[in-house]
Amino acid sequence: MKFCSTCGSSSLERRIPEGDTLPRWVCAACGTIHYQNPKIVVGCLPDWEGKVLLCRRAIDPRHGLWTLPAGFLENGETLVAGAARETAEEARARVDVGALYTVISLPHINQVYMMFRSRLLDLGFGPGPESLEVQLFEEDAVPWNDLAFRTIARTLRNYFLDRKLGEFRLHVSALERRPARPELSGAA
Amino acid sequence: MKFCSTCGSSSLERRIPEGDTLPRWVCAACGTIHYQNPKIVVGCLPDWEGKVLLCRRAIDPRHGLWTLPAGFLENGETLVAGAARETAEEARARVDVGALYTVISLPHINQVYMMFRSRLLDLGFGPGPESLEVQLFEEDAVPWNDLAFRTIARTLRNYFLDRKLGEFRLHVSALERRPARPELSGAA
Repeated sequence: MKFCSTCGSSSLERRIPEGDTLPRWVCAACGTIHYQNPKIVVGCLPDWEGKVLLCRRAIDPRHGLWTLPAGFLENGETLVAGAARETAEEARARVDVGALYTVISLPHINQVYMMFRSRLLDLGFGPGPESLEVQLFEEDAVPWNDLAFRTIARTLRNYFLDRKLGEFRLHVSALERRPARPELSGAA
Repeated sequence: MKFCSTCGSSSLERRIPEGDTLPRWVCAACGTIHYQNPKIVVGCLPDWEGKVLLCRRAIDPRHGLWTLPAGFLENGETLVAGAARETAEEARARVDVGALYTVISLPHINQVYMMFRSRLLDLGFGPGPESLEVQLFEEDAVPWNDLAFRTIARTLRNYFLDRKLGEFRLHVSALERRPARPELSGAA
C-alpha cells in the first residue's frame, strides 16, 4: 500500500491509531485507517466411491502439483457456496457439499483454509482453466510427494485416517511458517 | 475505493479482469487488480459453571446491547489466538479456548463468524474499553431481547439446546440480509 485509496495521498504512516492496539496504515492527509485482515480459502474434498478428486495446477504457485479444488471466498458468498463454486471452476465438478472438515490457520500468510467433505454427484468432471488435469485417486495412488500445499496434504491424511477409524470429525489446527530447508540452515 | 493504492491514480474501473469471472476494481493506469474478500469475526462463548459471559457494548453499532466477546481476526493471528485476544480485550477475561462451535456466513455484509466454546479460567473479568459491563448469566437470565447480533443469539440458542441434548456439535449455517421491518414493508 503506497497511496490512500480514499483520498489518493501518499502520506501513509504505519502507526497504532488512538484506541487501537496494533499498527495500521493510516492516511495523514484524510485520517482513513486501512485495516488488513486474513482471507478465507474455501474448498472441497470430493469423494466418489471411496476415491478422492484432485486437480493438477495449471497456474502458479505450485504449477504442475496436485491439490483439492479451493480458492478465495468472494464477497457476497457463503462458505458452502464458495466451496461448490471453486469445485465447479477448477474441476468442472458438481458436488453435494457436506460437513466442514478441516479449518487451518496460516498466520504467516494471513489465510484460513476451510475445507468441506463433499460427495461428487457424477463423473462429468474435467479441468477448468486453472487445472491441467483432474482425476480420481484411491488412497494408495494419491501423489503424496507432488501435493501443492501442506493444508491439502493434512486434509487428505486426516480423511484417510478418520475413514479407517470409522468416524469423521472436525479438525481445527494451524500451520506456521515452513521451516528453513536443512541444507540452508546447515542442520542436514 | 476512489484511488489506486499502488500508483495513486483515480482511474479505477469496475470490470471483470481477463480470465476472471467477477467484477473487481482495476486500475486503468497501472493494471493492479484490487481484490476484496470477506472478513472473519472470531470470538468465544466463555462458560463458568454453566453460566455464560456476556459483554454490554460501549461502542456502535448496537451500543448498550449484549454480545459475546468477538471481533475481526487480525493478520498474523490464528483463529484460536484471535478468539482469546478478543475475550481478553472486551471482557478482560482469561479462557481456555475449546472446540469451534458455530460458523455463520453473512454474505450481505461480507463476514464469517467463527465462535469457539471456551472455559473461563477465573472470575477476574471486567469491562475493557469497548464494553460497558461484563456479566455471567444463567440461561434463564440471558437478555434475549437485548442481544446485539443475530449471530450471537443463534450461538447462545444452539449452546443451551445442545447442553440439554447432552452433546455439543459444530453448527455451520448462514444468515441472509435481515428482512425489512413489518412497519416499513407494510406487512404489519
